[in-house]
Formats: sequence, C-alpha cells, structure tokens
Amino acid sequence: MSRIEKDTLGAMEVPVDRYFGAQTMRCALNFPIGGIEERMPKAVVQAMGILKKAAAEVNREFGLEAKISTAIASAADEVISGKLYDENHFPLPIWQTGSGTQTNMNVNEVISNRAIELLGGTLGSKDPVHPNDHVNKSQSSNDTFPSAIHISVGIELMKRLRPAITGLRDALAAKSQEWKDIIKIGRTHTQDAVPLTLGQEFSGYTQQLTNGLERLDAVMPHVYQLALGGTAVGTGLNTRKGFAEKCAQRIAQLTSLPFVTAPNFFEALAARDAMVEVHGALNTIAVSIMKIANDIRFLGSGPRCGLGELSLPENEPGSSIMPGKVNPTQCEAITMICAQVMGNHVAVSVGGSNGHFELNTFKPLIVSNVLRSIKLLTDGSITFTNNCVKGIKANKEKIAKIMNESLMLVTALNPHVGYDKAALIAKTAHKNGTTLKQEAINAGISEKDFNDWVRPEQMLGPK
Amino acid sequence: MSRIEKDTLGAMEVPVDRYFGAQTMRCALNFPIGGIEERMPKAVVQAMGILKKAAAEVNREFGLEAKISTAIASAADEVISGKLYDENHFPLPIWQTGSGTQTNMNVNEVISNRAIELLGGTLGSKDPVHPNDHVNKSQSSNDTFPSAIHISVGIELMKRLRPAITGLRDALAAKSQEWKDIIKIGRTHTQDAVPLTLGQEFSGYTQQLTNGLERLDAVMPHVYQLALGGTAVGTGLNTRKGFAEKCAQRIAQLTSLPFVTAPNFFEALAARDAMVEVHGALNTIAVSIMKIANDIRFLGSGPRCGLGELSLPENEPGSSIMPGKVNPTQCEAITMICAQVMGNHVAVSVGGSNGHFELNTFKPLIVSNVLRSIKLLTDGSITFTNNCVKGIKANKEKIAKIMNESLMLVTALNPHVGYDKAALIAKTAHKNGTTLKQEAINAGISEKDFNDWVRPEQMLGPK
Amino acid sequence: MSRIEKDTLGAMEVPVDRYFGAQTMRCALNFPIGGIEERMPKAVVQAMGILKKAAAEVNREFGLEAKISTAIASAADEVISGKLYDENHFPLPIWQTGSGTQTNMNVNEVISNRAIELLGGTLGSKDPVHPNDHVNKSQSSNDTFPSAIHISVGIELMKRLRPAITGLRDALAAKSQEWKDIIKIGRTHTQDAVPLTLGQEFSGYTQQLTNGLERLDAVMPHVYQLALGGTAVGTGLNTRKGFAEKCAQRIAQLTSLPFVTAPNFFEALAARDAMVEVHGALNTIAVSIMKIANDIRFLGSGPRCGLGELSLPENEPGSSIMPGKVNPTQCEAITMICAQVMGNHVAVSVGGSNGHFELNTFKPLIVSNVLRSIKLLTDGSITFTNNCVKGIKANKEKIAKIMNESLMLVTALNPHVGYDKAALIAKTAHKNGTTLKQEAINAGISEKDFNDWVRPEQMLGPK
Amino acid sequence: MSRIEKDTLGAMEVPVDRYFGAQTMRCALNFPIGGIEERMPKAVVQAMGILKKAAAEVNREFGLEAKISTAIASAADEVISGKLYDENHFPLPIWQTGSGTQTNMNVNEVISNRAIELLGGTLGSKDPVHPNDHVNKSQSSNDTFPSAIHISVGIELMKRLRPAITGLRDALAAKSQEWKDIIKIGRTHTQDAVPLTLGQEFSGYTQQLTNGLERLDAVMPHVYQLALGGTAVGTGLNTRKGFAEKCAQRIAQLTSLPFVTAPNFFEALAARDAMVEVHGALNTIAVSIMKIANDIRFLGSGPRCGLGELSLPENEPGSSIMPGKVNPTQCEAITMICAQVMGNHVAVSVGGSNGHFELNTFKPLIVSNVLRSIKLLTDGSITFTNNCVKGIKANKEKIAKIMNESLMLVTALNPHVGYDKAALIAKTAHKNGTTLKQEAINAGISEKDFNDWVRPEQMLGPK
Repeated sequence: MSRIEKDTLGAMEVPVDRYFGAQTMRCALNFPIGGIEERMPKAVVQAMGILKKAAAEVNREFGLEAKISTAIASAADEVISGKLYDENHFPLPIWQTGSGTQTNMNVNEVISNRAIELLGGTLGSKDPVHPNDHVNKSQSSNDTFPSAIHISVGIELMKRLRPAITGLRDALAAKSQEWKDIIKIGRTHTQDAVPLTLGQEFSGYTQQLTNGLERLDAVMPHVYQLALGGTAVGTGLNTRKGFAEKCAQRIAQLTSLPFVTAPNFFEALAARDAMVEVHGALNTIAVSIMKIANDIRFLGSGPRCGLGELSLPENEPGSSIMPGKVNPTQCEAITMICAQVMGNHVAVSVGGSNGHFELNTFKPLIVSNVLRSIKLLTDGSITFTNNCVKGIKANKEKIAKIMNESLMLVTALNPHVGYDKAALIAKTAHKNGTTLKQEAINAGISEKDFNDWVRPEQMLGPK
Repeated sequence: MSRIEKDTLGAMEVPVDRYFGAQTMRCALNFPIGGIEERMPKAVVQAMGILKKAAAEVNREFGLEAKISTAIASAADEVISGKLYDENHFPLPIWQTGSGTQTNMNVNEVISNRAIELLGGTLGSKDPVHPNDHVNKSQSSNDTFPSAIHISVGIELMKRLRPAITGLRDALAAKSQEWKDIIKIGRTHTQDAVPLTLGQEFSGYTQQLTNGLERLDAVMPHVYQLALGGTAVGTGLNTRKGFAEKCAQRIAQLTSLPFVTAPNFFEALAARDAMVEVHGALNTIAVSIMKIANDIRFLGSGPRCGLGELSLPENEPGSSIMPGKVNPTQCEAITMICAQVMGNHVAVSVGGSNGHFELNTFKPLIVSNVLRSIKLLTDGSITFTNNCVKGIKANKEKIAKIMNESLMLVTALNPHVGYDKAALIAKTAHKNGTTLKQEAINAGISEKDFNDWVRPEQMLGPK
Repeated sequence: MSRIEKDTLGAMEVPVDRYFGAQTMRCALNFPIGGIEERMPKAVVQAMGILKKAAAEVNREFGLEAKISTAIASAADEVISGKLYDENHFPLPIWQTGSGTQTNMNVNEVISNRAIELLGGTLGSKDPVHPNDHVNKSQSSNDTFPSAIHISVGIELMKRLRPAITGLRDALAAKSQEWKDIIKIGRTHTQDAVPLTLGQEFSGYTQQLTNGLERLDAVMPHVYQLALGGTAVGTGLNTRKGFAEKCAQRIAQLTSLPFVTAPNFFEALAARDAMVEVHGALNTIAVSIMKIANDIRFLGSGPRCGLGELSLPENEPGSSIMPGKVNPTQCEAITMICAQVMGNHVAVSVGGSNGHFELNTFKPLIVSNVLRSIKLLTDGSITFTNNCVKGIKANKEKIAKIMNESLMLVTALNPHVGYDKAALIAKTAHKNGTTLKQEAINAGISEKDFNDWVRPEQMLGPK
Repeated sequence: MSRIEKDTLGAMEVPVDRYFGAQTMRCALNFPIGGIEERMPKAVVQAMGILKKAAAEVNREFGLEAKISTAIASAADEVISGKLYDENHFPLPIWQTGSGTQTNMNVNEVISNRAIELLGGTLGSKDPVHPNDHVNKSQSSNDTFPSAIHISVGIELMKRLRPAITGLRDALAAKSQEWKDIIKIGRTHTQDAVPLTLGQEFSGYTQQLTNGLERLDAVMPHVYQLALGGTAVGTGLNTRKGFAEKCAQRIAQLTSLPFVTAPNFFEALAARDAMVEVHGALNTIAVSIMKIANDIRFLGSGPRCGLGELSLPENEPGSSIMPGKVNPTQCEAITMICAQVMGNHVAVSVGGSNGHFELNTFKPLIVSNVLRSIKLLTDGSITFTNNCVKGIKANKEKIAKIMNESLMLVTALNPHVGYDKAALIAKTAHKNGTTLKQEAINAGISEKDFNDWVRPEQMLGPK
C-alpha cells in the first residue's frame, strides 16, 4: 500500500504507513548499502527532533504561525522520544550524502506529515505544514546536521559515557582501597621488580580513568558550540538576527546542557574538528582501558601456570573442549572494544581531513563512528565493571609467595652497599638458584643488616 | 515462557521459542553491549553451519551414529540458509569472548536442540544430540571459529566483493572506451598540465581496479587455509587422523571454493594474520576508490563555478535550502565508506597484533570488521556503479574550451626550442593574459611552426 | 683509540673521545637499527640534562656532597645546551629498551665522566662521580625517562609549536581581514552554493586554528605532571620525602613552565596516556591544516583550467618537463606532514595501549613520534605561512565573474516564492543554459523584484 | 664560497663545492623543515641514479650524443654508489613538492654538473650537459620519481628485508626443531590449556614468517611496474616509441630485478596504490612479529615471579636502580618498531588516498614511510634474531613442573567420560586445590584408567 509524494525531482511512491516522503524514499532507493546495522544512528535523529522543536518555537517569535509551530513541536516530541525511529520512519543508511541532507529531509518530511496529521490534513499534501518552508524554516542541512551531531554527541558523552567511566573508575578505586595492604611483586618490562601494594597498582588504573574524565570534560566546550544559524554556507542567509542564539538557548533548555551558538559558522560547517577532538579523547580512554584490562587478564592468568595473583569472576564455561576452563572474557570484550575505538578514530580523522570549501561531506561517517565508540565504551565499561572488576578477588597466598622469592628486593641494598655490589648479589643468587639473603651473607653483609634493610613493607614509599 | 537449560555452571532459563541453551543465555546476559547493530555477523553464523555440517558428516566416518550425524546436518542446513539467524536464534553480540567460544556454543546449542527436535526428543535434554559431545565433536571453538572466519570471508570476497569491484571496473572501462577521443586538459598538482583524453584518464581508474582484483586474488591462498582439526591449541587433541583434511574437502564441496587444511595449526589458531592481510587488500581498494570518486566529484564540480567537465546523474534534490542544487552524493557515500574501511583496517591490525600464546582473542572484532568492510565496499561499489558511473556524461564543449586555453600546451615546444625558452613563452602569456601562440610569435617562432608543433591531438602519446 | 669502561656485565672498549661508558657502548652494539635518522631525539636528551641538574641540586639538600652536586650541574648544562649531543656523545637509537633505560644510562655516564673530568679525575673511574650512585641518585629510568618525555614535549609544544600555529592563524586572519569585502561563490559538496566573502571563508580557517591553540592548551595540565620521584615502580623507593616536589619546582624554574609532581606515580610510570592525549591534539591540528591547505590549493588551481580564485606565490619552477608551470608546493609539503602526523598518531596509540603492569615499555617510540609530529607541524606551519599564505593574492575579476554566473543565487528567492518554485527556476536555467533572471521573469517574477531580491551583497548574513 | 646558477625563475647563489644548482637551492630555502633526519632517503636518490643512467643510455639510441650519454652515465654511477649523497649533494627534505620534482631536479642538476666537470666544462653553464634537456630527456618528475620509488622499494624489499625476515624465520625454525620434544602447558586466553611442545609453539611463529615471505612475494609484481615513459601526465608526450620498454629493460639489468613497463601509465602516475599494497604486507609482517615478540617476552618473564619458561640472553644491565635486573630489551625494540610500522601504514594510506587527477602528490611522504618501515623491520629483525632469538634457552624444569600441575589435562578425559563429567572433576580440583588424579579417582575413575588416559605426551596430536 503506497501513496504518492512529490519533491522537486518528481513523484515517488512511499509506503502508506510511513510518514516520510519523496526525498527519503528516493534516498532509500539510491543507497541500498548495508542492512539495519548501517542505519543512521537513533541518537542523531533524536537530536534532530530537539533541534526542529527548538527552531519551530523560535520561528514563532519570528512570525511562524502558532498553530504550525505547535504542531511541529508536537511531532518533534515523538522524534525525540525515539518512538518514530523505532517504528521505522527513519530508514536511511549512514552511507548517503555526506552532508546528512537526506536525513535532514527525512526528519522534515516525517515531522511535516505527522504535524499535518495532527492538524487533520492529508499526508503528502505539504499543507498546512511544508517540510522545507516550515519545518526547515531558517535552516539548512548544512547547519542542522552538524548541530544534531553536536547535540547527540554531547548528550551521549555526558549522560552515558561519563557515568559509565565514572562507575568503572570508582570500582577500581574501591579495589585499590580494599587491597591497600597487600604487598606484591612489581613488574617492569614484564620482569620482576621491586614491590608495591596491590592497592597502589590499582590506584594507577584509577588515576588513568580520573584523567580520562578530565579529558572528556576538556573537549566539551567545542562540543557545545552549535552551527545552527549558519544555514547553507555559514553566512546565515535566510535567517533572522537572533535566530541562532535563541535556538541554542532553547536547545540548552531542552537538553540541560550548556549549548551555545558557535563563534564562527564557517568553521562550524566546513570542519568537523570538534569531533576529531572528541574522538581523540575516546581514543585515549580506549588506550587506558586496553592497558588496564590487559593487566587484569595477565594478573589473573592461570589458574596454575600463570601469574595467578587475581581470580576473576567465573561467568561462563570457558571452553567447548577443555572442561572446567574459565577465561577472562570480560577483559577480552572490552579490549576488542578498545581496538575498535582505535580504528574508528582513524576513520573519523580521515573524514575530518577531507572536507572541501564551505562543507565537510563526511559527516554521517564521522558521527556514526563517534556515537558507536561512545556506545561501545559505555556498554563495555558497565559490563566490565559489573561482571569483572567488582568481582575480582586477590589470591593473597600466591601474591605473598612469589613476592618473597623475588630477587629485586635487592634494590633496598643500594643505599647501603651501592648499586654494583647489590647487582653482584642478585646475579649470584639468580645463577645459583639461591636466596638473596644467602648470597648477601656470602658477600659479607650481616644477617641482621639484611633483615633490617630488606623489608618489603618499607619499600613502598620514600623515606 | 521459558524452559530450563543447563551447562557446567548450572541452570538457566531460556525463552521457550528459541533453540539456544544455557551458555548462549549466559553470554547474552553477561554482554549487554550494543543493540541489534552489534550482533555477530550473519555470515559467520552461516559459515559455522557449513562447518558443523561438514564435521558431522566426517565424524560419521569416524563412528558418529548415522542418525545423529544426519540430524545435525539437517539442522545445520537451516543455519546455512540464514533462516535460524533471521528468526533470532543467534542473539549474541560481537563483544563477547575473544575466541568466539560463545558463538560456537550458540551454534552447538541451536543445532543440537533443533536436531533433537527433528529426532522427536526434548529441547534442553542434550539427548540424543549433545551440543559438545556430538555437534562439537572433534572440535574446539579455537579451531571452528577461525575456520568460520575464513569460510565466511572467503565466500563474501569471492561471491560478493569480487563481482562488485569487477562491475565498477567494467563500468569505468566502458566510459574509458566511450570517451577515447575526447581530448582534455591534464591536471597535475591540481594545476593545468598537458592534455590527455578523457578515455585515458578513465583508463587509469580502470587499471586501479584491475589491480585491485589482482590484490584480492593474491590474498585468497591464505584465506582458503582452515584451522579445523587443530582443536584447542593446535595439536589436534581429541581428533582422529584424517579428520581435518576430510572436513576441509567437504567444506570445499559445500562452498565451491578451494578450502584446504592449514599447513600449521599453531599459526592458524594463534594468529589472524591472514585477516590482516585480507584487510590490507581491502584498504588498498578503498584507497583506489577514494581517489577515483574524489576525481569524479571534482571533475563534475559546478555546474557553473567548478571544473564542469563531467555531469553526474541527478538522483535527488541536493539541498534543503538551495533549490535546484544537485550534489555528487554517490561520490560522498563511497568515499565515506573508504574512510570507514581505512579505520577498520587499524582495528583489525591492532586486534591481530594482540594475540597471546596459543590463541588470538580478538577474533570477533577482526571478523566483524573484515566482513563489514567487504559489505560496505560491495554495496557501495554496486550503488556507485549503477547510480553514478554509468550515468556520467562528458561536457564536451566545456572540456574543449578550457583545454584550448591551457598554457601547458607549451610543452610541445620543448623538443624544438628547449625548456628554458618554452618556459619564458608560457610565463609571458600568463603574465600578459595572452595566448601561447601570440607570445610564441613574439618570441620568434613562426605561426606555421607553432601550428605544426602545438597540436593537442598529437600530444597524446610517444612519437 | 679507546679506553675501558665497566658495568655490571663486565668491561667494554669505548672511544676515547666520548664521555659515554660501558652501558651506552653495549646498547650501541646491541641495537644497530637505522642510521643517524633514528637517533633518540635531541630534545629528550636535553630534557634529561634539565632533570639531572635539578636532581643534583635537590640531592644536595638531602646530603649529596656539594662538590659532586656542582660538577653534575655543570656537566648537565652542557647537555642542556645541546653541545654534547651535537658532539655525538649520545649515539643511541630510538629502538632500544622500551623504558629508555639505556638513554638514561647514556646521560648518567656522560654527565658522570664530564663531571669527573671537571673535577680532575679519570674518565671511566666512576670516581668521584658515579653514574648510578650520584648522577642517578634517587632516580630510576622508570621515572626519569617519562619525566624527560614530559619536559621535552612541554617545551616543544609551548615554545615552538604554539608560536608557529599562532603565526599561521594570524596570517590567515590577516587575509580574512584583507578580503572581507570580496564576495565570492560558496561551494558545498564541491558544487556551487550561495555566496560568502573570501574574508568569511578565511575566517573559518582562522577559527580552526584558534580552536587548535585551545586544544593545545587543554592538554598541557597532564603534560606538566612529572613522574620524577616514583623511581622503579612508582612507590618512590630509595628517595626521600620531598625529593619529588622539590625537583618538579626546580624543573619549573629551569624551563619557565609550570611543571608539578604527578598526582599518582603508578599511573605516571605505567601509562603514557598523556602523550596519547597530546597526540590527539596534534592529530586534530593536522586534520585542520589538511583541510585548509587542500582548500587553498584548489582555490588556487589553474591558472586557466581550474577554479583560479587565488594566486599562490611562485616559489620555484613547477615542472621538469612543462615549462612555466607553478605548483602549490607549500600546500603539498604541509599536507604530507599532516598525513604523517595522522600516521604517527596510530603509532603512539598502539604504543600507549601496550604497556604492562608497572611500566609502559614503548616510551622511545611514543616520544619520538610526538616530538617528530611537533617538529614537522612547527617547521611546516612556519614555512607554509611565510612561503605561501602571506603571499596569496585574490583574483578579484575571476572571483566576481564566476560568482555572478552561479545559479545558487536563487536561494534568495526562497522567502519570496517558496523552495519549490525557486528550484524550478534554477533547474530551468541550468537546463537551458540561461540566466536566473531570465527564467525568473519567465516564471512571472518582475525584473524589479528579482533585482531587489537577488543581491549577493545582501546574502552574507541574517537579516 | 658560492657560484651563480640559474633556473627559469632567475639566478641563485649555490655553495661552490656542491654540484646542485638553482632549483635545489631554491627548494632548500623554501622548505626548511626538519634537520638531517628529514632528508629524502638515500635509496630514492640512488634509484634515481639508476634510472638516469638507463635513460641516458637509451636516449643515445634515440639520438643523444654519445659523449653526453657517457658522461651522464658516469656521473650517475657516482649517484648509484651513494658517494654523492654521502657528500651532501642531495640536501633536500622529504617535505617538498609532493611530486618529488625538486629531488628529480636535484638529481638532474648534480648529474649535469658532474658530467660537465667530467667533460671539462664549467659548473652551472648547463653546457654541454643540460639538466632538463639532456639528463631529464624524455622524462618528467611525474614518471621518474614514481619509478625511483618502485626501484628503491623493490631493491630494499628483495635485497634487505626478505633476507632479514628469512633469517628470523630460520632462527625460529631452528628453535622449533631443537625443542620439538619439550612438552609444555598450552595457554589460550592467557589461561592454562592443554599441552603442546615448545617446538610446536615455535613452529607457529615460523609459519607466520613463512607466510610473511609469501606476502612480500605477492606484492612484487606491482612493484616491478615502472611509470617511466609516461612523462608529464601518462601520455608519454615528448618520448619516443620504445623508450619506456628499453629503459625498463636496462633498469632490470642494472638491478638484477625483473622491472617492466607499467601496463597503464595513467594509473602509474596518478595512483600510488602499489605502495599502499606493499605497506599492507609490511603491516601484516609487523603484526606477526609483534605477536611473536610479545609471546617471547611473556614466556621469558620472571625470573622468579613470571612464567619463566624461557631465558632470554642478558645483553645489558636492565635497570639503573634495580641491580641485577635483565630485561627483554630486544623484544621491546622490535615491538616498538612494529607499532611504528602500523602507524606508518596509516600515513601511507592517507597519502595514497589523496591524489588528484593525473598525479598523486604525496609521493615523498609515501616512499619515505615505506622505506623507513623496510629499514626498521630489516635492522630490527636482524638484531632481534642475533641478539635474542638465537640465544634463547628453554627452562626445562620449570616448563615440566607447571605443565604437570595444569588442570587442563582433564581434556584427555572427554572421549572417555564426556565433557560434563570432566568439567566437574577439573572444577572440583580447582576449588579444593587438589590434583586432577585425586578428584578423578573420587569421581570413580580408576587410577589405572587415569594414568592411561591422561598422558601429556599423547595429547600432542590426533590419534
């Protein structure tokens, strides 16, 4: 069942139970690329809803008929809630025009038709609500789509990723506190080194994520800058003075985030540098988590032939052939996610570098990668926190046993006997398979001095 | 409505209308990462079906009861067809254990339950078909999942990407042939250079893709090598001699592709180098297409203020604010895809480099990126071919006009008057805004000589 | 001519005219990788000099003999000045141990021998200044090398890159101001769009770099955090309380940059996230400059068959075969640099993600890439500014001519006749090769209205 | 001391003791980017020498005066030998024009002046040997520079990298053979798994590099294709028929490598896909070596608190603070190199994707990265082979001890008691800290059966 919709290229049949019109249909036919996995992300469409609502309300101040403004805002609310996305009114793929024009028109068409419906009109009539002249009034894809990028990314960063990373950070901090008195062997170059506490080790991870949160905060000022008001090339042609600022203010209200009008629309349309910057922060967080999760899986390696200092939660059978095997699967999922984020970063950078003149046309690529990285890091961090970090147990006996065997406790002798002599003692013990104490005594150090000097619990900080 | 299924960690409720069992359910609960977009790709699951069928048939030769073997093969056929994937029996995300164990178990559970059903048994009873002891017989996730990677990637490369790239290559070749007599200005450094034909220009694009096809062919030998038979660590523990080779042979029959047993199972489990290699070829193809599509959009820039040599098909209205605008949207979609492929390549390389000991545990990451790159390049190339390349028209008048104005035709004077004098003529014409001929005559060359020497149609090849 | 030096592994012959000792020699022999191009960067060695001087002075407060402290400081000054690097006392490659231990020892050996020499002792005697016990006192490679990374990167970012980017930004701003009244065609999707001024276009570039400077500033807080005081694993073993903070304070004085002690030494040794973060900012700047330089070369394309809006300085003959050709070579150099920076970023990210336990051992890789990116962006920006941007000329006639031919001026009709009718006018003019005005009149708009409505000079901002 | 040289832009002072002329000087002044580390690689200049010699000889067949041809060839020999590069006649940086034109002119100028000198003429006179008209005869930078890229890369790949990788492969193969009877614990997911031999483990590494060699061989056909003969835009303007093929033949003779004329000059000038392809192979090799070196450092971790299965050679003192520490420094150097290669790959891909129209202008970037990756992998592999792999010792007692403690030997029970029961035994032993045998007997398996079934030496292959 279909109805006829028209655009400037002519008439198109569209499904009768969909709100979108001719341009959306045309695009769907022109870009049959990938399946449902390759759709324009929901968060972008929802952000478009926010923007269209704000614009309709501001346009009312500039003369848009109240009835139309209200109907647009109501229809936009159904976009914002995600309802219309879930009901398949936004079928377009990421892989369309690089300006997101077709998604902008998809939103314009859906909102105009839904608003028409709310006002008792005929779908496809463009009357009394026209997709271009009313829903898109004072706008262009070139300023709405980048604004929707910033809105969606701002929301996802602050309302999803930030809490998730905070949760992981806090879980690591709790472990750091819980294990503050467990002294263990340090490892540098993967080789035995001087001791530290397990709590100290986990405090490093905690700091990495605290820094990560600071990195997120540092990129937000540019995220909060909106292109809206620049229209086609950044000049603001066909808008009214004050439109941009009023819209930004309204969007800030709707999102409870401090969005503002960008200081320069030409930059805001032609570049997507802020997204490259954002993804730089995501990349750094991915690098941090990759390190942390790698450490955890190695510290938990074993149970009998690995380092065995930690026991990770046993969430599922580990092997289809080796009975009883338990694997660090949460570490694996999150490190795979980190690798994906590192790859997405390159896609975003390549896209960001390839804009031309007044418009970057790699926008859907860019935003889809930024949002995917955010989503994966968010969900991955929550899962890793709940199904791994919180349940890790320290194997105190194993930790103590191997720490006490370490030759690197010899470092405590440096201030007393000098580096060269200490080195000789350690090397001799290694060669002979003996203990440090034995060789220290052989080297003329009294047992009492050795016992006084080599005390792991006194090697945990400056004097 | 649910039923109870058990694994070695205990009992789980699973939806009654799904064939999967406890391990799949456990994984779904442990890895709530992303939505439907983040599912394990269908092609991997289908390849698993091929593998399970082959193994069941070969196991029969080694003593598996015929009834069970046949039931497994029948159930596997429903996996191969995609039916069971489409009906949501494979809900697991990419972001699970890095070995793909849980997808292997998902397949084992679905096939065993479906086979049990076919044999009139009770779902979840593991009787008469056990997911591990029968469906996974002589196998491990560690050899089945990499085999499924190679099978799925091999199929998608040869049956989808290769034809799509061939189609694009042929469309470019047809244009090259069609335009073999249109002489145009060459551009190097984006600056005016000596002439060539539009056909010659497009012959370069054609060659790039012919080379791309050769690059695909060059990576296939390693793709065709299967890990199956290596089981848990590559030794082939719990398999029978000949199992590996017979399975590979059967898989080759089922796919009509020359799959063989890998020469070294330790490499085949611990590394995923072949996928890094494959993606290197995809990356090169992306680089080629990026160049081609960029050229086409610039050559088609305008209509009045750009280069304007080509007219691209007008597939949709180009702007929500600028009426009548038509944009190179197909170029934009495919170049965004190329950027994505370049990013995916880094994800694959990072994942490939991070394996440890007997197993790479970034496999779902790796295969999902390889398959996504293949899918995007395939669909993108087909769309670009049909909706752009085939419909491009050459603007002969514009091409001729600007070519004849070019100062770089002066190069034809080199063999006659030397580089330095020719340079002076060109520079003077540029400075004075005059024609080459005018300045050549001023420099003492006769008009007849100039007309004899500077003939674009004689500048298209060696003498 | 050689002398004998010893370390804990035994005796080594070293060149008699070099200050380095056995460990440096050993490393040089063990890592014959690359030539002079692959040496540890000078800035790292100089930063090591700063650190060793600061430590020697602080150690005096904690009991180091004044004579030794002073001699170390004097020798360190010769490292800081670059003199000893230029005289080849630091021959080690980047590709050594991943902790930079051997460069730390190279510095320790050179300073101790030079200090011994200053005090009248015998080179290689380690008396009265021992490389480990005195020069490296209270230090470890594991805290000195990351500190030297932060010091060198902090200096290069603030004292070299920031001024260079500021210079480029200011040159672009000057052009933006100079050209504020030149109205030109806008281009979106590389296609003709509505007009803007050339000054507005360049204001976008200016803003990109202003943002870039903000991005640099945003990463500095983490750069200013020093690992010094953490010693081997972050505990600060073998240091004295206050040592870390006093050293940081002294380093801040020596560099006039606000270096401080890191809040967590475990993070500061085990991770190099701050460098990944720094390189994220460099990557974003590279992306910005790539866009700007690409635009400039395309706007300057021609002289007769391109866009031809700008004339770039003619710095050198452009072609060895095409006389009189001038190319955008500065754009080419800087865009190649941007591509290199994008690649370096991946190397840094891979290195950053691969640390293990208490130490990241990809440090020389990381710092060499960060410093190389800084150097290339610095030198490249200066060259691009001076040899290209400052000398660009606007071709006013060409700009005006093509702007006036553009069909996209039709956008000014939208508010008067609606999008659909305006589109029809533009499309008809395109089809017929006529002017907008002609088709507007045919469509029933009066000439007066057209002239009133379609005025490029009134299309440059909101009303 | 200087002399005056001229080019088409005017006169320049050049150092009197250098052979280069005005264009080189101009470029050096226009591109002060980086120091000696950033020079155009020697291998490119040497390859240019090969090409110029070949062209001079072939040009003689087409009428170039014998005296001039011979003098050019003689001068070219001094370029080929590296003598003139080492004597600083090629000062230009990588970061110049993206076509390498200035390096082509540098070579033309040096060869012409040296040839003039050989013939008794005056430097700078361009008489009797002109840099453009004679040395560059029938050539353009646009075909010579890409040809030099292919020649230099071809030589370095086949004469340096291939032997180095072969050497590493052979050293690993020798270890695999030496250790074929040492049974050890396998590790999957970094966790204990079923046993294999140390020889089998190293056979996987060996296979990775054997595949790497096949990957190198697979890219050579496109490397051997030369652009020479295409001149400015690929048409071969100003060359003679047969020139291209004769030159390729002569280059093949001079290099003993099967260089041929490219099948399509337009592709050969406008794209650098072959280099992206080559670097894809380098990237895959880097990924392989990263995995191998990571394994070796982890297997060698300890000496007392790590896995401790291998002992790596002790090449240098490991720590400036921890006496007696020995680190896997060779693993660290080579893994840093692998990370660099992965980064370089992105730079090459970005450069490769950004060509426009008839010429890619990211060539110096591309070739410098390809050659650097080759050099680092070559030198790194040789060093890693000689200073690490060859000297690795297996710690047989430690290997045997931990293998026998592993719970994963339970897998051998699967065929006898089924996966579920075997899992229960393993899990009980893990929980109780007991041995498998103990729990197996508790579970009703006779000791005799257990001893017959669980025999590591029978778990190393299929039955």
